[in-house]
Amino acid sequence: MERYDIAIVGSGPAGLSAAINAKIRNKKIILFGNRDLSNKLLKAPKVNNYLGFFDVTGKQLSERFKEHIEKMDIGVIEERINSIYAMGEYFALMVNEKTYEAKTVILATGIEYTKPIKGEEEFLGRGVGYCATCDAPLYKNKIVTIIGYNKDAEEEANYVSELASKLYYVPVYEGVYDLNSTIQVVKNRPMEIQGDTRVNKVILQNREIETDGVFVLKDSISPSQLVPGLSMTEGHIEVDRLMKTNIKGCFAAGDCIGKPYQYIKAAGEGQIAALSAVSYLDSQK
Amino acid sequence: MERYDIAIVGSGPAGLSAAINAKIRNKKIILFGNRDLSNKLLKAPKVNNYLGFFDVTGKQLSERFKEHIEKMDIGVIEERINSIYAMGEYFALMVNEKTYEAKTVILATGIEYTKPIKGEEEFLGRGVGYCATCDAPLYKNKIVTIIGYNKDAEEEANYVSELASKLYYVPVYEGVYDLNSTIQVVKNRPMEIQGDTRVNKVILQNREIETDGVFVLKDSISPSQLVPGLSMTEGHIEVDRLMKTNIKGCFAAGDCIGKPYQYIKAAGEGQIAALSAVSYLDSQK
Ligand SMILES: Cc1cc2nc3c(=O)[nH]c(=O)nc-3n(C[C@H](O)[C@H](O)[C@H](O)COP(=O)(O)OP(=O)(O)OC[C@H]3O[C@@H](n4cnc5c(N)ncnc54)[C@H](O)[C@@H]3O)c2cc1C
Ligand SMILES: Cc1cc2nc3c(=O)[nH]c(=O)nc-3n(C[C@H](O)[C@H](O)[C@H](O)COP(=O)(O)OP(=O)(O)OC[C@H]3O[C@@H](n4cnc5c(N)ncnc54)[C@H](O)[C@@H]3O)c2cc1C
Repeated sequence: MERYDIAIVGSGPAGLSAAINAKIRNKKIILFGNRDLSNKLLKAPKVNNYLGFFDVTGKQLSERFKEHIEKMDIGVIEERINSIYAMGEYFALMVNEKTYEAKTVILATGIEYTKPIKGEEEFLGRGVGYCATCDAPLYKNKIVTIIGYNKDAEEEANYVSELASKLYYVPVYEGVYDLNSTIQVVKNRPMEIQGDTRVNKVILQNREIETDGVFVLKDSISPSQLVPGLSMTEGHIEVDRLMKTNIKGCFAAGDCIGKPYQYIKAAGEGQIAALSAVSYLDSQK
Repeated sequence: MERYDIAIVGSGPAGLSAAINAKIRNKKIILFGNRDLSNKLLKAPKVNNYLGFFDVTGKQLSERFKEHIEKMDIGVIEERINSIYAMGEYFALMVNEKTYEAKTVILATGIEYTKPIKGEEEFLGRGVGYCATCDAPLYKNKIVTIIGYNKDAEEEANYVSELASKLYYVPVYEGVYDLNSTIQVVKNRPMEIQGDTRVNKVILQNREIETDGVFVLKDSISPSQLVPGLSMTEGHIEVDRLMKTNIKGCFAAGDCIGKPYQYIKAAGEGQIAALSAVSYLDSQK
């Protein structure tokens, strides 16, 4: 299997800045994220605080970023990493059934702004999960509800629908849904997840769904779920000034390591993380 | 006297990013530096690693930065701050005979790359100094040598020449020198500073100068000299993740707080420093 020098997880300003800096240092990189780079970038109506660009929209800034990586021949691999394991010599990055290998990892996954639904945290691990494809085998021939916060969730829904006896898809976003015909789309706001020892019901604004399991698929999953053993502090990944986490060879940058949540702060940290990964790799030779 | 909310010392990427972010938050700011912003910015032949700008020269990037601050009505005050004193309620920033006042300070002074001349550190405080205008009174009617690393040094030389009996100016840069006619320009590479208990001689490549004092005027003076009591670590200003120094109300960003020495790292930190200063100010209300 191909082994990369640096795997970068996330295509927001932190991940992109890490990618260009690592590539300049001639490292073999792989960048995971979205074609649109970052939702949070696209959504900004007006950006004035990224030095060099005055009075631009998030979309315009995003196009400049895209141009930058394209000119450097950096592509974004459109995959959602479900889990990352430190294997000693390298890291294994899992995407459902697929695995990627890299000597170092830079986490630039952003942060989830959306508040948990009532009952979500209470039933986590007791019928509530964040990675549908990881836990799908548990729901063979069972009823599953997926609350999807973005288009990526559709792919996971399609995958799970092949095992589950019934799949309800509750989208928390507008758009055209590319879903298998067996999936029932329920456009209705999720209010609460209920159960006794385990989940048995999802309460929506105007109806209820009886269900064996609920997956809440947001823009990003919690870093400590993504990387078992990762040290956190106040909800963020713990890093030192050189963006090192507690796991050797694993670095982090951007919103996921703490406030302020801002573009150029994220880009600056992505650069530091990349250069730290480069010197870590060089020291291993 | 006018009292600013935030005084920013340095007009490189760190200082500029701090300035735009503080201004967006409606703080009354003052930014000290150079019209050309930063020599280090101008000198870069090719910049590829500032996310959003691919394949630009340092000069082009610098023009984009200038445009950004101009559109936000931020001017650069062309003054070199000699010392900064924490006065309790505020900071006093000294420029020779002038004083500015600000409730908070952001140090974004960059770092000095040039190695000390032989003997420079040995005789520091015993005839060697870094601030000619500060120490000028000590050299009334004496012979002074100024080793100038940039054009700013010329102004200091002119000032000292009015007190000293004789002033030698040794420029370590090319250009036209705007100096009083009484100053003797010696274009010759400085090799060593000699003396016994105090300095008495400067050895140049092809000649020697007998002198009572030597001022070495570089792009930036050491932060701990600039701000008495400032905590340093391995030659850099010690800060936490929010860019706070050990002195309340004093923040720092960019090359002066540590490696890697890079533009977007500096800009990201400038942003954090500004937002930390803003929340410090808001907490004082
Ligand atoms: C409406 C709005 C307006 C804003 N305006 C401004 C502004 O004007 N100025 C400013 O400085 N900041 C602004 N921000 C904040 C800014 O968007 C964030 O600080 C910035 O995007 C953080 O960058 P990041 O790279 O850390 O994360 P993000 O930009 O969030 O990018 C993270 C990326 O990683 C991907 N990802 C996450 N997990 C995985 C995984 N497991 N596998 C693969 N990919 C994954 C995500 O899909 C996403 O694309 C705004 C935010 C919002 C929401
Ligand atoms: C030749 C060269 C090429 C480079 N190329 C790149 C590159 O391609 N990419 C990259 O990312 N980085 C590059 N760098 C590094 C980059 O220049 C620095 O990391 C960056 O400029 C640091 O920004 P800063 O704001 O911390 O400090 P600086 O840019 O050094 O700015 C500090 C400013 O503060 C002013 N100042 C200092 N003391 C005082 C005082 N007491 N009063 C008033 N003003 C003061 C200085 O005059 C200066 O204008 C290069 C550097 C050099 C020398």
